[in-house]
Amino acid sequence: MATEPPDYRLSDDDENVNLGVWNKDFEPALSVESGAVVEFECRDAANGKFDTQSTPEDLMATSFEGHPLTGPVRIEGAEPGDVLEVELLDLRHKGFGVSYFYPESAGKGLLPADFDDPGLYIWDLDGDVGHFVNGIEVPLHPFPGIVGVAPAESGDHSTTPPRRAGGNLDIKHLTAGSTLYLPVEAAGAMVSIGDCHAAQGDGEVCVTGIEAPMDVTARLSVRSDMDIDQPRFETTGPFSPTGADEPMYGTTGVADDLMDATKLAVRQMIDHLHEERGLARSEAYLLCSAAVDLKLNQVVNQPNWTVSAYLPESLFPGEGAPE
Amino acid sequence: MATEPPDYRLSDDDENVNLGVWNKDFEPALSVESGAVVEFECRDAANGKFDTQSTPEDLMATSFEGHPLTGPVRIEGAEPGDVLEVELLDLRHKGFGVSYFYPESAGKGLLPADFDDPGLYIWDLDGDVGHFVNGIEVPLHPFPGIVGVAPAESGDHSTTPPRRAGGNLDIKHLTAGSTLYLPVEAAGAMVSIGDCHAAQGDGEVCVTGIEAPMDVTARLSVRSDMDIDQPRFETTGPFSPTGADEPMYGTTGVADDLMDATKLAVRQMIDHLHEERGLARSEAYLLCSAAVDLKLNQVVNQPNWTVSAYLPESLFPGEGAPE
Repeated sequence: MATEPPDYRLSDDDENVNLGVWNKDFEPALSVESGAVVEFECRDAANGKFDTQSTPEDLMATSFEGHPLTGPVRIEGAEPGDVLEVELLDLRHKGFGVSYFYPESAGKGLLPADFDDPGLYIWDLDGDVGHFVNGIEVPLHPFPGIVGVAPAESGDHSTTPPRRAGGNLDIKHLTAGSTLYLPVEAAGAMVSIGDCHAAQGDGEVCVTGIEAPMDVTARLSVRSDMDIDQPRFETTGPFSPTGADEPMYGTTGVADDLMDATKLAVRQMIDHLHEERGLARSEAYLLCSAAVDLKLNQVVNQPNWTVSAYLPESLFPGEGAPE
Repeated sequence: MATEPPDYRLSDDDENVNLGVWNKDFEPALSVESGAVVEFECRDAANGKFDTQSTPEDLMATSFEGHPLTGPVRIEGAEPGDVLEVELLDLRHKGFGVSYFYPESAGKGLLPADFDDPGLYIWDLDGDVGHFVNGIEVPLHPFPGIVGVAPAESGDHSTTPPRRAGGNLDIKHLTAGSTLYLPVEAAGAMVSIGDCHAAQGDGEVCVTGIEAPMDVTARLSVRSDMDIDQPRFETTGPFSPTGADEPMYGTTGVADDLMDATKLAVRQMIDHLHEERGLARSEAYLLCSAAVDLKLNQVVNQPNWTVSAYLPESLFPGEGAPE
């Protein structure tokens, strides 16, 4: 994709980064006119604490201080009730990525009780491909896990949960060429970006995608002609890992609670990856979070709902399905 | 796809159809050897009560007796603990389809409280396309909403909820060329098929897809070498309406309950279709159920989850996005 040179560039130096909190009263790192193109240099979610030598033990020795977000950028004229349009023009990883999950004691992720030990994998990101164990290759489609504007309420707000003002949405289809619309809640909008992922499965089940430092270029425009209550977006996907239909292996969870059905589907997928594809369960959990998609098949057949997890066979070297 | 002639054909005559219940002790409509190819003639979910002249008033004058299922087919040698492999070889609609939803009083569907009146739309199914209002064209990818084996417990079981033994899964990716694996719970497996949809969005939010009478050809094989706890499947999709990446409009729901987030996403999509695309809200709800996909973006950013609804712009005549 051809990109235009940015009007402004925000480095990931300390003065342009906030750690773990939204606050509408933060001093803006930059103030721009509506329509400006800004390049955000973004640290990874772990704030650069890992490198190619890191191990799962390093994860447990490291405290998570919250997502480092680059910003906030104040957009002149943006007022509560407006909409901030964020056109994602370009995303560039830097060759390094990390995925990890915490053990039961930390209570994070979809299946904390299933793992006694932490997991951590350092990715070599090679252009459009991330290399995993056993020759597995994950197609990369970089996106920012966090794009948000400051919440209306004064004070600090954790960066972990997303809100109607966006934030940690983790919508993997917000790839380059996509446009996100967010309801402005504070004067100047005060947009920040971070938590970039080189790839992620719908669900981000282990609590991380492929976390990667990245440069994100976006055009920021105030829209006074729109009125939305929650985030909206336009995207061309991809909607499968390669942007084409291809063989997928599916595991289904049927339960009377959507989260329970989701857990069932993912547990079955971990079983499949372990039993049929020879991955350790910890590797399977990491791969699910990076490259397996969760879909809501039906939410109306009372009292049981259907959720399925989709694994692209093309991740694996050689032939497709094992059966 | 080239298909082989079936070894057996089950018509949708009354003697081959059960209405609204699973029961492992039903007399089999057919008994076949493992590996047999059977053509199931399937009635639509409304049991043929609607035709091209039907109106929403007819819906309310009609009682739903449960899904008519063609079968059961007994597979010789199948025993509890085995797996039934269902290879879906061919699915053919007959040109007619119907979508409908019930008003608040019936309490069905994702958003019953949002609609005081029922909705019903009769589809003209023209090869690979279903024609909707305003020139909207929905690509057709036929699949059986219900493929199941008899539950282990004696007695009648409603066909409405899916179970680990399958049934009303409504997995729209079970298109021709896909293979579904179900845990066998009763001697002979006792498989039945029905509730065919010419198209459906992930979620089937209004409680119907494009309900259509259909001929379904499947190879039924007993697998004693597999051990699964829930349904699994292999599919090549499509994973977007046309099997290619294409512009989609997304609406997002952020909430601390997955069903609440799902409702938020779908309500926003109905708003979008009404305000930007000129559909009546009832038409928008029907279209969401037929052609809008629900994805679980993330299920780990405590305490708020992200669910989004995806609308393909290519459904609409002429240019894509309105903005």
